[in-house]
Amino acid sequence: MKHYLSVNDIESLPQWVDEAIKLKKDPYQFEDLGKHKTICLLFFNNSLRTRLSTQKAAMYLGMEVMVMNFGNEGWALEYGDGTVMDQGTSEHIKEAAQVVSQYCDIVAIRAFAGLQDKAKDESEEVINGFAKYASIPVVNMESSVGHPLQALADAITLEENKLDKKPKVVLSWAPHPKALPHAVANSFVEMMKLQDAEFVITHPEGYELNPAITEGCTIEHDQDKALEDADFVYVKNWSNYTYYGQVLNKDTNWTMTEKKLGKAKFMHCLPVRRNMVVEDAVLDGNQSLVVEQSKNRIFSAQIVLKKILENLK
Amino acid sequence: MKHYLSVNDIESLPQWVDEAIKLKKDPYQFEDLGKHKTICLLFFNNSLRTRLSTQKAAMYLGMEVMVMNFGNEGWALEYGDGTVMDQGTSEHIKEAAQVVSQYCDIVAIRAFAGLQDKAKDESEEVINGFAKYASIPVVNMESSVGHPLQALADAITLEENKLDKKPKVVLSWAPHPKALPHAVANSFVEMMKLQDAEFVITHPEGYELNPAITEGCTIEHDQDKALEDADFVYVKNWSNYTYYGQVLNKDTNWTMTEKKLGKAKFMHCLPVRRNMVVEDAVLDGNQSLVVEQSKNRIFSAQIVLKKILENLK
Amino acid sequence: MKHYLSVNDIESLPQWVDEAIKLKKDPYQFEDLGKHKTICLLFFNNSLRTRLSTQKAAMYLGMEVMVMNFGNEGWALEYGDGTVMDQGTSEHIKEAAQVVSQYCDIVAIRAFAGLQDKAKDESEEVINGFAKYASIPVVNMESSVGHPLQALADAITLEENKLDKKPKVVLSWAPHPKALPHAVANSFVEMMKLQDAEFVITHPEGYELNPAITEGCTIEHDQDKALEDADFVYVKNWSNYTYYGQVLNKDTNWTMTEKKLGKAKFMHCLPVRRNMVVEDAVLDGNQSLVVEQSKNRIFSAQIVLKKILENLK
Repeated sequence: MKHYLSVNDIESLPQWVDEAIKLKKDPYQFEDLGKHKTICLLFFNNSLRTRLSTQKAAMYLGMEVMVMNFGNEGWALEYGDGTVMDQGTSEHIKEAAQVVSQYCDIVAIRAFAGLQDKAKDESEEVINGFAKYASIPVVNMESSVGHPLQALADAITLEENKLDKKPKVVLSWAPHPKALPHAVANSFVEMMKLQDAEFVITHPEGYELNPAITEGCTIEHDQDKALEDADFVYVKNWSNYTYYGQVLNKDTNWTMTEKKLGKAKFMHCLPVRRNMVVEDAVLDGNQSLVVEQSKNRIFSAQIVLKKILENLK
Repeated sequence: MKHYLSVNDIESLPQWVDEAIKLKKDPYQFEDLGKHKTICLLFFNNSLRTRLSTQKAAMYLGMEVMVMNFGNEGWALEYGDGTVMDQGTSEHIKEAAQVVSQYCDIVAIRAFAGLQDKAKDESEEVINGFAKYASIPVVNMESSVGHPLQALADAITLEENKLDKKPKVVLSWAPHPKALPHAVANSFVEMMKLQDAEFVITHPEGYELNPAITEGCTIEHDQDKALEDADFVYVKNWSNYTYYGQVLNKDTNWTMTEKKLGKAKFMHCLPVRRNMVVEDAVLDGNQSLVVEQSKNRIFSAQIVLKKILENLK
Repeated sequence: MKHYLSVNDIESLPQWVDEAIKLKKDPYQFEDLGKHKTICLLFFNNSLRTRLSTQKAAMYLGMEVMVMNFGNEGWALEYGDGTVMDQGTSEHIKEAAQVVSQYCDIVAIRAFAGLQDKAKDESEEVINGFAKYASIPVVNMESSVGHPLQALADAITLEENKLDKKPKVVLSWAPHPKALPHAVANSFVEMMKLQDAEFVITHPEGYELNPAITEGCTIEHDQDKALEDADFVYVKNWSNYTYYGQVLNKDTNWTMTEKKLGKAKFMHCLPVRRNMVVEDAVLDGNQSLVVEQSKNRIFSAQIVLKKILENLK
């Protein structure tokens, strides 16, 4: 692995999850590995968990961390080839990526989908631009179409909490007042495809994710049926993919409730809208894994950085 | 002490002040205490002194520091119980506080009074929300109604500069063009109540602070009379408390002058409006302690963090 | 040297360049020098290279780094003497500079020209205010009229790439859609005056820089003639100096092209507007030194910080 851009860059999911769980028990055991190595975290969008957990992961590995809000602290970037830059953009991704590569050993980037233009979002110009022009490894801290650090944290959480060798895991769409990207759902689906599990996706008709990603997955539009005998229910809103970025459905019949959840464990990547995505009783109950998921963000980042650092040597 | 939320969390003011003065002489003497410990500084408002001095204090103790401007880097927080989150807030304090607790050992928070709604400000929803839901110690870096790190720094400064065992200390209101919170004045009053001193508060009639805080204190509306034979004069503006958050008085007769100050030492928490709160001659003269007060912000933070770290062991 | 405010604070350019090139080969060799020393980077304007390279330089020296966006994280500063501060400014430079001096050992500042008022810009109120009132060394990370860390990086780049003992270096103005400051050009000129080189400045008539800075330099308005037999071409836009801060010329005949460049090496401080300041072919070709220049920003900062730290002992 050079870059960690998507779940598909994980060389062996079970092995990485196993190593991450070992890191969690003794997080400073590789503190020398990152000595004299610097990671730069570039944020084009807001962040709480990713910002703090990735810093923490780097600290556990003894790395130096530089954090930058590229959007308002740096320069507006140009991504087009051959553009005459006489408008609003001040610096080309070609220079920006090469320059950042001079100052650190790994660069991690967050750049959300704009949800205005599907083709543009799917071209992943920010993270792919960095991956193309940087001379150092690039880590995805949530891009337009994927959030692979979250999916890896989710895999760790599933492993730690599963009782069956082959649990039933349901990804259940939830209503939300605002248009949200597909990144978390996409990476969760991609990760589940690498798992030995019974995996079902449930959402209202017309709320299909990118079919290239869900290919081969069971999709069940009847939420109750999908949830039957579930061991884990991962709840997440995403905006419409066909009518790209639109909010066509806010049906609170899809809100996750204690009753619907049954005996399953509840998962969500956070931040979560209470009583819209999921009712209070679920989050405040003891079947919720959301805080544990957020803790595992440290160890998904740490295993990724560890793998990259070992490669750098 | 678990949290440091107010002056009343100080177990023994004279002892802490004494220890802080010893830290100041050799600030790296407990550099091992914070090894592998992380503090996260969350700012919901601007800061200069608090931001830098708290970082410096943590560095002296060998801690890792993560700084975050929650307001524009994180998510809009919801504080209400049972709210259906279908409006502007994206994350509930319950999740935010628990999540931050996974990534650090201590969290320090700045969240000013909004000065629109007294009851809301006095409920201290931000810092109390963190204190309620976080699983780690919370430090107040100025909340709606208190600024206990400043008050502790002021106690250190008083101790270092007093000539009498029982000095006369006057808190004198000053005019200001904008509506300012009561936090600094409140915590100064609370701290003075723990001191062996003659303490007088002077302000225009109608500018009373919260009577629950000033209970038992001498209040003198005649500024000249209040200032007679003062050893220390602490000048500070606050907006009206009764007509909550309003600026009803900008009377520059209350501006502190060299003449009024007499032989007293001048104190202010900074930032200070020159020639409005206090005339240039005072700040530029050698009776001003304001820079020393700002230096002591390091050591008030350091003693608080040291006490918390010792408790964590 | 106490402060590093301009190129003229360099004690010996050849010696510093030589030392910087040695640092580049083994950047951690003075890692103990900055132990228990803190640098505070204060940004009043955006930054990418300066922000990251100065942090990196400080890390190489084992320093602690505190980064602050003064503009939106701190308080609006007042610079006037005797001002009655009843308007928009909250804190005077006198207090701010003294206070920051309590929390760190070196302060570095970026504060661009406003380009509205020549006299105000040339008074350098921000950086000179800090230099006047701070009790610690001040480093210029680009002020209104100079960018001496960039110029020193450029001197390192010239030294590493020159084939002749006395190369021909041309500073060539370029068109740009927005009004840019003169700082980079000014410091480059000042640095070139300390070099053993044939130095020519070329720009459209009427685009003269401050004559006090270019005094003694060859100015040639015919760009082709200026570029003849050049070894290095440093391209840079600046706004009009006479009609201060105005954009009177966007003539793309001045854009640097492969053809114009001939066999010379291309230099620019970045960020650069592609196909406006310089065509793609130059930046993507192997005569471009821009990425190397950006790397050398680390070592110009590191040599400056090293000199200051040695002085502090």
